[in-house]
Amino acid sequence: MSSRRIDGGVTAPSGFRASGLHCGIKINGKPDLSLIVSDHPAAAAGVFTTNLAKAAPISLCQAHLAASHNQARAIITNSGCANACTGPQGEADAKEMAQLAARALDCDPNHVLVASTGVIGVNLKMDKIRSGVPQAVAALDAHGGAAAARAIMTTDPFPKEYAVEVTTESGSFRVGGMAKGSGMIEPRMATMLGYLTTDAAVDPLMLWRALTEASRYTFNAITVDGEPSTNDCVLALANGASGVQITENLYPALFEGLRAVAHELALGIVRGGEGATKLIAITVAGAASDADAWLAARAIANSPLVKTAVHGGDPNWGRLVAAAGRSGAHFVLEGARVQIGSLVLFENGRPFDELAPRAADYLTGKDLAIEVNLGTGGRHSATVWTCDLSADYVKINAEYRT
Amino acid sequence: MSSRRIDGGVTAPSGFRASGLHCGIKINGKPDLSLIVSDHPAAAAGVFTTNLAKAAPISLCQAHLAASHNQARAIITNSGCANACTGPQGEADAKEMAQLAARALDCDPNHVLVASTGVIGVNLKMDKIRSGVPQAVAALDAHGGAAAARAIMTTDPFPKEYAVEVTTESGSFRVGGMAKGSGMIEPRMATMLGYLTTDAAVDPLMLWRALTEASRYTFNAITVDGEPSTNDCVLALANGASGVQITENLYPALFEGLRAVAHELALGIVRGGEGATKLIAITVAGAASDADAWLAARAIANSPLVKTAVHGGDPNWGRLVAAAGRSGAHFVLEGARVQIGSLVLFENGRPFDELAPRAADYLTGKDLAIEVNLGTGGRHSATVWTCDLSADYVKINAEYRT
Repeated sequence: MSSRRIDGGVTAPSGFRASGLHCGIKINGKPDLSLIVSDHPAAAAGVFTTNLAKAAPISLCQAHLAASHNQARAIITNSGCANACTGPQGEADAKEMAQLAARALDCDPNHVLVASTGVIGVNLKMDKIRSGVPQAVAALDAHGGAAAARAIMTTDPFPKEYAVEVTTESGSFRVGGMAKGSGMIEPRMATMLGYLTTDAAVDPLMLWRALTEASRYTFNAITVDGEPSTNDCVLALANGASGVQITENLYPALFEGLRAVAHELALGIVRGGEGATKLIAITVAGAASDADAWLAARAIANSPLVKTAVHGGDPNWGRLVAAAGRSGAHFVLEGARVQIGSLVLFENGRPFDELAPRAADYLTGKDLAIEVNLGTGGRHSATVWTCDLSADYVKINAEYRT
Repeated sequence: MSSRRIDGGVTAPSGFRASGLHCGIKINGKPDLSLIVSDHPAAAAGVFTTNLAKAAPISLCQAHLAASHNQARAIITNSGCANACTGPQGEADAKEMAQLAARALDCDPNHVLVASTGVIGVNLKMDKIRSGVPQAVAALDAHGGAAAARAIMTTDPFPKEYAVEVTTESGSFRVGGMAKGSGMIEPRMATMLGYLTTDAAVDPLMLWRALTEASRYTFNAITVDGEPSTNDCVLALANGASGVQITENLYPALFEGLRAVAHELALGIVRGGEGATKLIAITVAGAASDADAWLAARAIANSPLVKTAVHGGDPNWGRLVAAAGRSGAHFVLEGARVQIGSLVLFENGRPFDELAPRAADYLTGKDLAIEVNLGTGGRHSATVWTCDLSADYVKINAEYRT
């Protein structure tokens, strides 16, 4: 089994078309309506936000996947309005959005998945959606992945898309994907918006299993600001157009294809995090359990003191130790170890501050690795990707609606 | 029982003297050594950080309180160096600091409590401490509270001290206090540094009970950045100099005295939080349990999206709902309610965006109240005080050591 990067995003796999356009929800004229369509019904799987303030389209997706026995033809997404905290009107609007797409595509409304992203608590401008959906269907294109990826952006500084071709002894299939960030990001069993397409033939249950496992180490291992949103979701469609049937012995190839695409998309979300200037891989090792490793890695990755120190290029390892110590994970100070890049700054209760200038130099980079060993003697580890915290994050979020 | 505000901070109660001076730990010449002394052995109580990366002086205080059966004469504090993550040398230094004070005061070293605050991972300059401690003892003054409060500051923009006189039918006693913030603040059963003195006569166990209960709604109900530090501690000394013995029926008066002083100090820490421009009381009501109320209040109070929105004067109630929804507390969107000041912006699943301009106007104030009802029908509530998140927080913490 081998895989290689290819172009095309969600339309890289056979039998998928996509489009993106401005229908009028955003007042700045930028693209705000995105459509992905499989030419034939595809196996579908989703993982959704754990936020109890669930947005209307999240509930609708869950209902549609149940009603369709995990089949779908299309994913329709608007940006600029989250359709969250919008009550019964919001539910009706999400439903109508699916019906509009189903009518234009001549398919069952249960085969349409709906997502929204943007400001919370504002109703969708349905007149814009009503005129936009037929246009989006008319614009569908086998090379439309890039346009679709652009139309789901909000404060994202760049679109996120990626695709791979996986070659197995039973033939080749492709996996494509697109995603958006870039604030209110700490998905926990879901993510802002991430869509994966494949032309492999996959049983829906196996697709769900692969999506869930791949998300764990990708979409669920990133954070920008520790804020799981009301609209997070990752959706996968598998339409079988490649003719490659994923049997149990090909599962590793499917997993690897989904993981590779999800990994790049997830890192793209962090790189494009609000105000972010650096991507930071936080690895916690020496944890007493898997849960402890994740707990400590998330605590460090969300620590404003760690994130501001990295932003300022300050190798302030004391803040890493403090964040690990208060994370709730088992922690033994005497055995703890902090490594920034390849430089060990604290070990066996002893600081190595003579290395601080070299560590500061390392922190001027854009792609950083930090490792904290919890000192328990345990062998569990986890990696979470985060970004630095800059004054621009504050600026963006203090001015988001005003 | 009644209480009134008085001047004098920790030296307002009878039988306490204090001092603060520059001994040479800070390179900028600001005061960095603080001493509080009771003329006679006082009942002593402490609550300490839950961070497992405990600093050397924290362990020393715990050992001294155990050895002295909760008696103490003095609290000696240096600022500019946390003496945390400093290994066996750090433990020896904290011990020597207590011995130096004990020698100059002619008391048992176990009767000296030690605290440190500042940069983590740097050893104390013991030559400075050795020459400074006798000077601090020589400078002790019955009006020295303000000098002592100033000498424990790090990035605090102003000193925090407060005192009250409590009048009961059995006579009057006084409670004084001082504290410092102002980053790495989310104490959880401890706080950065807070010291309370009283001239009431109190059994140590009762003092501990009153301190713990008062801290729960004051020092433990604040946050600046969600970061419990390695050095958090609140200490209380009760020397009995007023002649008022706190019996069980006077316990409410003692509690109220400690609570009133701790409340003002805690709010002072938040007002002086790094980069803070506003004090925000976050009240969560309608919670299914006490734990849920605290969980949701802390989640909202630590939400960078909520804190930046308030900083920008944006009544973005959707972020309040989203933070409550992902907090882990039971939450029912249909019954939830968001109130900013006296304005209800979301209720029964319906936004009231016509009130947004008035809410934005309210948010231009410096002292704000926000209430979120979780909509569960439960009757539990909690209030947590936080500050806004400004670009200055990032600036301060990106440049702290450099």
